[in-house]
Amino acid sequence: MERITGGVTAPKGFEAAGVEAGIKYKDRKDMALVYSQKPCVTAGVFTNNVVKAAPVLWDKNIVKNSPYAQAVIINAGVANACTGAQGYDCCKRTAECAAQELGLPLDAVLVASTGVIGMQIPVDRITAGVKKLVREKAEGKQAGDRAATAIMTTDTVDKQAAVQFQIGDKTVTVGGMCKGSGMIHPNMSTMLGFITTDIAISKELLQEALSEDVKDTFNMISVDGDTSTNDTLLVMANGMADNEPVISRDENYRKFVEALHEINETLAKKMAGDGEGATALFETKVIHAATKEDARILSKAVICSSLTKAAIFGHDANWGRILCALGYAGVEFDPENMELFFEGESGRIQIYKDGQATDYSEEEATRILSEPEVRVLVDMKMGEYEACAWGCDLTYDYVKINADYRS
Amino acid sequence: MERITGGVTAPKGFEAAGVEAGIKYKDRKDMALVYSQKPCVTAGVFTNNVVKAAPVLWDKNIVKNSPYAQAVIINAGVANACTGAQGYDCCKRTAECAAQELGLPLDAVLVASTGVIGMQIPVDRITAGVKKLVREKAEGKQAGDRAATAIMTTDTVDKQAAVQFQIGDKTVTVGGMCKGSGMIHPNMSTMLGFITTDIAISKELLQEALSEDVKDTFNMISVDGDTSTNDTLLVMANGMADNEPVISRDENYRKFVEALHEINETLAKKMAGDGEGATALFETKVIHAATKEDARILSKAVICSSLTKAAIFGHDANWGRILCALGYAGVEFDPENMELFFEGESGRIQIYKDGQATDYSEEEATRILSEPEVRVLVDMKMGEYEACAWGCDLTYDYVKINADYRS
Repeated sequence: MERITGGVTAPKGFEAAGVEAGIKYKDRKDMALVYSQKPCVTAGVFTNNVVKAAPVLWDKNIVKNSPYAQAVIINAGVANACTGAQGYDCCKRTAECAAQELGLPLDAVLVASTGVIGMQIPVDRITAGVKKLVREKAEGKQAGDRAATAIMTTDTVDKQAAVQFQIGDKTVTVGGMCKGSGMIHPNMSTMLGFITTDIAISKELLQEALSEDVKDTFNMISVDGDTSTNDTLLVMANGMADNEPVISRDENYRKFVEALHEINETLAKKMAGDGEGATALFETKVIHAATKEDARILSKAVICSSLTKAAIFGHDANWGRILCALGYAGVEFDPENMELFFEGESGRIQIYKDGQATDYSEEEATRILSEPEVRVLVDMKMGEYEACAWGCDLTYDYVKINADYRS
Repeated sequence: MERITGGVTAPKGFEAAGVEAGIKYKDRKDMALVYSQKPCVTAGVFTNNVVKAAPVLWDKNIVKNSPYAQAVIINAGVANACTGAQGYDCCKRTAECAAQELGLPLDAVLVASTGVIGMQIPVDRITAGVKKLVREKAEGKQAGDRAATAIMTTDTVDKQAAVQFQIGDKTVTVGGMCKGSGMIHPNMSTMLGFITTDIAISKELLQEALSEDVKDTFNMISVDGDTSTNDTLLVMANGMADNEPVISRDENYRKFVEALHEINETLAKKMAGDGEGATALFETKVIHAATKEDARILSKAVICSSLTKAAIFGHDANWGRILCALGYAGVEFDPENMELFFEGESGRIQIYKDGQATDYSEEEATRILSEPEVRVLVDMKMGEYEACAWGCDLTYDYVKINADYRS
């Protein structure tokens, strides 16, 4: 497997566009299109929030019941959540407009929204936006870049990744883009993620690969503990790599899973590191846990702790807050028999052992905690399972962004 | 039942003290004593964090196994958590010193600590502090005030409450004090609470009354979602009201439960409203839920949502975040069939109904959200159960306090 530049337009046959539609923001791109020249088998995972945005309801139906999809229309600024029947009608009209402009059946069009909850989307602006997107759609990296920029809300950078691997003599490419920032605690977040690939694969295996991999990637990140009404992650596979179709859990399936994981983990980490107001990516790896689920729960509790996140912002080795978070996670363990380390580019130091602090250097700890990527390693000494979770620090800017966001 | 001024020294026979012991802070009181002239039946609830501070382990043993307790020694500044055998030995030496100075058996002395996790308490300073406390202990409101001030960490005001009621011709008094501020998500918090009463009551009923009432009071508040290693709430009853002893769940027991609830709810709300950096008390009441547990879970999810808390700080009626929090709480409901209101001194407005926003006035909503006590009312329309939860807004100062706290 090889990392390459690019995003959703990296695989063969995928086109994209990003345009200014004036949905809510002014003077910036706020609508995107991802389009495949050929029909795609499509898999998706969605928010488990009881309050589901209208586009989530629309897409769940398409992913489940439609054999193929070929286009996704995305807008930023308004989430189309808590908008009742009018909101769902907006999804339908968006899809109808796209279907007509692109010459596709209605059930081949997916929609996704992100932004403020509770506002209605102005339908005339969105259909005008769709027409503009269809006119401007194109292959190539620049088109992908425009789409990745258009889906941002409070994100500070666009988030893309792409990889390639071989099946026989055929090159298969997987590319993706996502947006994150706030209301990010995917329990698949206001995350939206779109992954494209030219692999030929069955719909069942595509869904299985996605559903399994999100458990260790997107579901292991958190910016603020709030699980969005709009979380949507879609994968579209158009088969244009012309590989022997993947229809069983064989070596080729495992290669695809590995590639998908690389894209998902890369995008998930980008999302965590660019959390609203964040100055650092905060990773917690739990090793030697008794079960995989324990490892996931423990690592996620640490990156979700407001106090720990504030300490990371302050570059303060206040490791007691990490112990505290592990302790309330809901997993039984012996605090006297575990170890804690801080890791960074500048090295690794042990902080806690045998029930109390080691004789570590505060200076060295502060140096590690001042890096843009801070890692905590927790050795539970209970078994053979491990998991990794990613979050960010809690900063003045998180509060500022979210005290002001709607205005 | 009648509200009176005062705290732990309001009931008959209780004395208190607060002194400067230099445990960690300089130029402020940081140790307190609560002392009863007569032995007390004692009940307690403690953190359910797996990582329990040494004083929690000490007190759990005393409350369970000792028939009577008569004194509590409390320090602020260092939490004596994650301190291993040395930490537990510090508890023992503190209790030994107090027992000797007060002429009590060792198992009549409780201890409690709050502050930084992972530091050892300087034992010589704590024993010097104990001697000072014993010299200065006194009856009356001023002594109670000094104790309530001494247990504060980042609290901005002391927190006390007292009530009186009658059993026959005898007046029974219940008083209490607590400290809160950060790492507050009690799952009976770094809350410490001490309640005194002169009622004559059995140990079993005292514990039952406390254990039941915390479910609707201290366990329904949150400042930051972090459940402390040190949460301790103790009730001491010395019988000096000379009432007919309460030994069954009769009318007199119910009067005591009502009085205890008044103290617990008052202290819990004071703690939430004085959360680290808070500018407002944020209350969420859920009515017409299908079960009591659903009502508790839903109300607590809203006051715990970082995004909602930041919106309250911004006085922004971003009600979609409230719906979002209800939706991920883990309770099934129909978002199309529920209602949402904001309430304050200046009135009540309906925000959401039938799956979408009402035509409410943003100006009026902002006015309500600018009050020092902001209330959200959620009508689930599913049943007959209700619950109330209390938190605070998320502010720049929360981040500042917790990025700097240890230094």
